[in-house]
Amino acid sequence: MSYIIRPWAVRDLKQVMQLIKESAAFHKALDQVRITPEMLREDAFGKEATFGCLIAEVPPEQKSKEGHTIVGYQFHYLSYCTWDGPVLFGEDLYVVPEFRGKGIGTSLLNKVAKIALEKNCVQFRFISASWNKTAMDFYTKLGAINVTSQNNWNLCHIDGEHVRKLAEQASR
Amino acid sequence: MSYIIRPWAVRDLKQVMQLIKESAAFHKALDQVRITPEMLREDAFGKEATFGCLIAEVPPEQKSKEGHTIVGYQFHYLSYCTWDGPVLFGEDLYVVPEFRGKGIGTSLLNKVAKIALEKNCVQFRFISASWNKTAMDFYTKLGAINVTSQNNWNLCHIDGEHVRKLAEQASR
Repeated sequence: MSYIIRPWAVRDLKQVMQLIKESAAFHKALDQVRITPEMLREDAFGKEATFGCLIAEVPPEQKSKEGHTIVGYQFHYLSYCTWDGPVLFGEDLYVVPEFRGKGIGTSLLNKVAKIALEKNCVQFRFISASWNKTAMDFYTKLGAINVTSQNNWNLCHIDGEHVRKLAEQASR
Repeated sequence: MSYIIRPWAVRDLKQVMQLIKESAAFHKALDQVRITPEMLREDAFGKEATFGCLIAEVPPEQKSKEGHTIVGYQFHYLSYCTWDGPVLFGEDLYVVPEFRGKGIGTSLLNKVAKIALEKNCVQFRFISASWNKTAMDFYTKLGAINVTSQNNWNLCHIDGEHVRKLAEQASR
């Protein structure tokens, strides 16, 4: 089996959107996917694009059962840590089940690590579900540290409705 | 007591750097602060600046015991969620102890929420230490959800040395 890792293009939107949904379904969170291909297109390929996406692509003759040639993806954006400096933040690393165990996840991480170095990042940061032992073992082997379990850092959200309430009170 | 919330400027770097160290000391992690004022200046006010910082400033006659007029800060940058779309990520929200309980933290959040709306973000996301009950209670009152305790999302890091190793193997 052969594959290439490359930055995505507009033509890949539909297949990547399908994989985003597959990944969400794997996390039993399909109902939380509010994004649409139109939003993704505007945000990713518009003037103010602030994130990148790498995809793993196989030749047409090796396409998946579902007819996909894009069999994995990884989103990333530049973030900043007041203690460490520039940090590359990874959002999602997904490989289609029938293509797992072939090194595609590692290849995606190899390439995103290269991007991190090019952008002078001192760290690659990402979120993983604590119940996903396979993923956590995979990341640990590559040198990842779980700073939630080791340093008690917890991730929090303030959603739209509450963000609007907060913003309304901005008087100063 | 009066104060204003405003985006920072180069002249504020020294005082903000001092507050970053105070905040790290509060988290018993002063030894983890690798950033310098020079790095911060380049990253924040150079051509490719990717993050913002809001500061809370009091008039000179109300300065802190240590002589500071900047008594709180909040870093933020645009990030992206494949399920939700654009998200504003907050890094640090700090108010000097003697100025706490006066609404400065809320005012900083009010202003950063306004920035989130201006940037079409559907969510404000941040990290908090699980042992910092005062902070967690404060955020919860404002509508925050702890997605680590509720949805098992854990934060992970891959640090420089391992990022370099990963990048070296990027052949495809």
